[in-house]
Amino acid sequence: MNFRSDNTAAAAPEILAALSAVNDKPVAAYGEDPWSKQLDEKFGEVFEREVRVFTVATGTAANSIALASVTPPWGGIICHAEAHIACDECGAPEFYSGGAKLVLVEGAHAKMSAVALKEGIARNARGIHSIQPAAASISQATERGAIYRPDEVAALGAIAKEAGIALHMDGARFANALVALRCAPADISWRGGVGVLSFGATKNGALAAEAIVCFDLYRAEEIARRRKRGGHLFCKGRYAAAQLLAYFEGGLWLRLAERANALAAQLGEAAAPFLSAPVESNQVFIKPGVAGLAKLRAGGADFYDWAEEGSGEARLVVSWNQDEADVKRMCALLVSLR
Amino acid sequence: MNFRSDNTAAAAPEILAALSAVNDKPVAAYGEDPWSKQLDEKFGEVFEREVRVFTVATGTAANSIALASVTPPWGGIICHAEAHIACDECGAPEFYSGGAKLVLVEGAHAKMSAVALKEGIARNARGIHSIQPAAASISQATERGAIYRPDEVAALGAIAKEAGIALHMDGARFANALVALRCAPADISWRGGVGVLSFGATKNGALAAEAIVCFDLYRAEEIARRRKRGGHLFCKGRYAAAQLLAYFEGGLWLRLAERANALAAQLGEAAAPFLSAPVESNQVFIKPGVAGLAKLRAGGADFYDWAEEGSGEARLVVSWNQDEADVKRMCALLVSLR
Amino acid sequence: MNFRSDNTAAAAPEILAALSAVNDKPVAAYGEDPWSKQLDEKFGEVFEREVRVFTVATGTAANSIALASVTPPWGGIICHAEAHIACDECGAPEFYSGGAKLVLVEGAHAKMSAVALKEGIARNARGIHSIQPAAASISQATERGAIYRPDEVAALGAIAKEAGIALHMDGARFANALVALRCAPADISWRGGVGVLSFGATKNGALAAEAIVCFDLYRAEEIARRRKRGGHLFCKGRYAAAQLLAYFEGGLWLRLAERANALAAQLGEAAAPFLSAPVESNQVFIKPGVAGLAKLRAGGADFYDWAEEGSGEARLVVSWNQDEADVKRMCALLVSLR
Amino acid sequence: MNFRSDNTAAAAPEILAALSAVNDKPVAAYGEDPWSKQLDEKFGEVFEREVRVFTVATGTAANSIALASVTPPWGGIICHAEAHIACDECGAPEFYSGGAKLVLVEGAHAKMSAVALKEGIARNARGIHSIQPAAASISQATERGAIYRPDEVAALGAIAKEAGIALHMDGARFANALVALRCAPADISWRGGVGVLSFGATKNGALAAEAIVCFDLYRAEEIARRRKRGGHLFCKGRYAAAQLLAYFEGGLWLRLAERANALAAQLGEAAAPFLSAPVESNQVFIKPGVAGLAKLRAGGADFYDWAEEGSGEARLVVSWNQDEADVKRMCALLVSLR
Repeated sequence: MNFRSDNTAAAAPEILAALSAVNDKPVAAYGEDPWSKQLDEKFGEVFEREVRVFTVATGTAANSIALASVTPPWGGIICHAEAHIACDECGAPEFYSGGAKLVLVEGAHAKMSAVALKEGIARNARGIHSIQPAAASISQATERGAIYRPDEVAALGAIAKEAGIALHMDGARFANALVALRCAPADISWRGGVGVLSFGATKNGALAAEAIVCFDLYRAEEIARRRKRGGHLFCKGRYAAAQLLAYFEGGLWLRLAERANALAAQLGEAAAPFLSAPVESNQVFIKPGVAGLAKLRAGGADFYDWAEEGSGEARLVVSWNQDEADVKRMCALLVSLR
Repeated sequence: MNFRSDNTAAAAPEILAALSAVNDKPVAAYGEDPWSKQLDEKFGEVFEREVRVFTVATGTAANSIALASVTPPWGGIICHAEAHIACDECGAPEFYSGGAKLVLVEGAHAKMSAVALKEGIARNARGIHSIQPAAASISQATERGAIYRPDEVAALGAIAKEAGIALHMDGARFANALVALRCAPADISWRGGVGVLSFGATKNGALAAEAIVCFDLYRAEEIARRRKRGGHLFCKGRYAAAQLLAYFEGGLWLRLAERANALAAQLGEAAAPFLSAPVESNQVFIKPGVAGLAKLRAGGADFYDWAEEGSGEARLVVSWNQDEADVKRMCALLVSLR
Repeated sequence: MNFRSDNTAAAAPEILAALSAVNDKPVAAYGEDPWSKQLDEKFGEVFEREVRVFTVATGTAANSIALASVTPPWGGIICHAEAHIACDECGAPEFYSGGAKLVLVEGAHAKMSAVALKEGIARNARGIHSIQPAAASISQATERGAIYRPDEVAALGAIAKEAGIALHMDGARFANALVALRCAPADISWRGGVGVLSFGATKNGALAAEAIVCFDLYRAEEIARRRKRGGHLFCKGRYAAAQLLAYFEGGLWLRLAERANALAAQLGEAAAPFLSAPVESNQVFIKPGVAGLAKLRAGGADFYDWAEEGSGEARLVVSWNQDEADVKRMCALLVSLR
Repeated sequence: MNFRSDNTAAAAPEILAALSAVNDKPVAAYGEDPWSKQLDEKFGEVFEREVRVFTVATGTAANSIALASVTPPWGGIICHAEAHIACDECGAPEFYSGGAKLVLVEGAHAKMSAVALKEGIARNARGIHSIQPAAASISQATERGAIYRPDEVAALGAIAKEAGIALHMDGARFANALVALRCAPADISWRGGVGVLSFGATKNGALAAEAIVCFDLYRAEEIARRRKRGGHLFCKGRYAAAQLLAYFEGGLWLRLAERANALAAQLGEAAAPFLSAPVESNQVFIKPGVAGLAKLRAGGADFYDWAEEGSGEARLVVSWNQDEADVKRMCALLVSLR
């Protein structure tokens, strides 16, 4: 019963099949193939406006290249202290941006409030001696499984706009947030002021396909350059493109995310008495204590202590193809802890 | 008749099939899966010694991360003026290294001679005011299709060792060079003094699988860190690993390269009177003049002028799955130019 | 009555005179002049051991070059959240280091405790996904005027050593701390585990002379390279060297710092009821409230609100040549606030 | 008889005296003092237009900060292969720019011709795979003592403008070029298309005072940021400002440069038969062969072989306070070589 992360899951058969479908004759390299060329239009349909799309190999690459393109080296990127870009990318944003600074703010469930964003913007205010606020970055869903509603995104977007800074969204679990909110992709991205989005597909069923979705079109050239310099312009672009096209095909991405969320909800119900965060997407945070976690492990469950060993808290992540029987067994285990 | 580049080719069926074979249950992410864990051993067998292997998404990433790991920011990397790292990576080596300098040397067929390397090492000699020679980088095969024999690699390796600098090899077409030389992989890598190798599989039949093969084991930790910061540590590592394991399986990589080289040799014979470089691997350089190239294109051939438009020279690259009938037609066209 | 900062003060006459004394015949450039060549030895005497000394133009340069030389780009530098390197250098440490991360810890009076250092070291512990602790940096005196006693430095040094990280000291006000502690320079630097020291002279009477004092001799070559690349290797090195030699001559530096500290102590006594930090060096922090600060200003005093406008708190800094009459007047004003 | 470089010279008495003149009461730090605040206006008068001026400690800093402000990290800076930025700054431009690439062109006497600039711009033309031409940088005077006439600057400026790239001038010896040309400072800078100028004063009589003169006013904010991050915003700004104000006062800078040029002309006449470059400013290049140079040294002359040991060629640099008797003796020595 592996609940360690959705990145432990295999790829969806539909996406794997798409690789075979494009694996034929010679086509132009470096994103000039017929499938790569469909990406701008396809994403444009999904997001209901003109966009520029850049495939990359990992979410860290998507985040770092996107962020480097919205901040000068002397800029500050306001983000939650638990954000993936702050804790899990080994300084990749600093590397790609030439040394920009992450300005860490607090907030329940790894979510940035409007107040926190304002404080983060105001924090460095010694003129030339301070770094200059350049961007805010939020995760949808957050590292604690919380999601931003359209009005919450818009509130942050408005603050960012007024401060003259960009709003970036780390959408490693964008689909999970989206289906939970039952809104349009546009509602939690550009309509709310998001200028650049890291759009994740890998965790939700792809093999390795992430995309930088650029709404601020004037930033596209810079993103293209930074991607190339980062070694993220795929030589045989067709395979990343095929994954993303299949991901959207027939709403596959939504179905996969819905399944994960629904199973997570089951876990959430079973764990209701010791949930340490509301279950809003496909992540479940529980705090049954050290002994409780030991029991779960003794019962065959595999997961991470969160945020650190010995905290008595744990994270359970449900993937697109989580075994339903496993979820049932886990629910029983959780109920047994009550 | 597409002879633009071997990167326009599809992936070998055996490699594509390998993706399905690993696409099953949950496994650990970030290179801790069972297949990724076989890479060090598998490459160790191929190279007849202990190595550390790091998969990345592109050849540019492999080169840049490898180079950054062998030079300080104030270092000089001696390479041929036509090297891929100098001309085709949009400054990725400078980016990853924090601003190291490529020191460009000349040489026939994009090959670095011992004399050129010595001159490149000696070029910056104003003490603290100069950058400090830190590495030499050679391409196997070169951007002009030439290959380094084991003794040539060893000669460069000896010079590098004496100068206290590292020797890096860009092996984007390592397999093509290897089968042409009929030697062991070790003979043109670590036995000749190569400390870090960019091992390419994408051009020769993979979808997107390149590896940094680290012979200088003490550099491994730094490479791991730089890969992570570059966003090149795959989340679902199994797919890159599966490609590389399949690449070696039953000598597939050698068969694919041999086929490409053999067909290139046919082109070379047909183009003998106007070859502008010896045909040593899977690249054929011809200089039939502007009119001649126009005739080839009128006959249905697609290729790049080399190194620039209007030069009257062209590069024909033969891929692992080049259509044999196409090669025959192209040979006929070439003969008709005589 | 200017108490804004000790950097508003002019230069000591003895130091200015030293410039004329060396302003004669041609001498070798780039630090090869007779005066620059004395620096290693002179600092060696002051610090009672072999050192390597590098003059630079500013304290920001000293800190950033020193820090870049003790951390890889993926390193973490643990420092207090109010440290100069964190708040007042516009990201210079991130720039020089290629994107290392400052790990901010708390502590009274901008001082890092042993507990805080341990927590800072432990904070990023997700293996390859986290930055790697590489250095701790402390300010002597701190941005809140506090000083580290020899045993406190040694305690931090021991923790750093055990963790395998370097200990850096920002000694912009090293002299003020030193004379307050009545110990040897060695006692609060290398004997306590400091590997690299930013030694400030500008605030305490020089025109523009800061030095990186390198105790970890093997780091010297890297510091030399980073200084050159930062544009901090003075062309006419004699003038920076002359300032530093004069600074030490006859104990000038100690006399200047003692005077500043003594006058600050007078202010401290006058402000005793509303001191917001103990007066340990030449900085005095008071919190008489917004109205109180307004009265001081109405009385002719000039100073900064601290740490931000409207806090009701202020910082008064006393320089080496603060006017004694001004201090008396200020004392009277402070007393009148009681 | 020291003819090694003009940076071996002491400072002009007028400039030293100016330091004392400002060494009085407390003034605002970080360039907000009364003298620093005069710089924009004073330089504006000299250059006959609005400018923004940034003092820094060295010429390397001026060049690197200026260049970083006119190129993205993926930019190319076209310069002569012998340029100071290419040969003598240990990669500082690459460091400050985040890894931009110097594109080296050839040309007699280290001078860039219009043809060479065009070729340099055209050299990298593989789209996203190539770096992007961003700036050209020329030295006035060049590293071989040559100078650009106003029409030559304008020709390069026109090419740069048409290509959409910036024109930077390394004016480490701007005064020497200026007085030789008997034109206005504007004629060889912004009127010819120079957007940013590294204005040197150190070699021509200052202690340590270089200025970035920004004609493209919209770049000023970026230069300010990069200067701060580089540790080049002087804490006590008054001293650098005082040097520059004194430099201009009463035309001192022109008198100093004229003297140096005139004495260099005497050397040039004496060395006429073996001059290896025309004498246009204060540098004299001679090629009397290895034996000839040995005789000069035996006669008491000190200078550098150029560009490398054993070339039989040498560089003689005359400073603003070169001893006249030394020049006479050297002339006699040179004549004796005929």
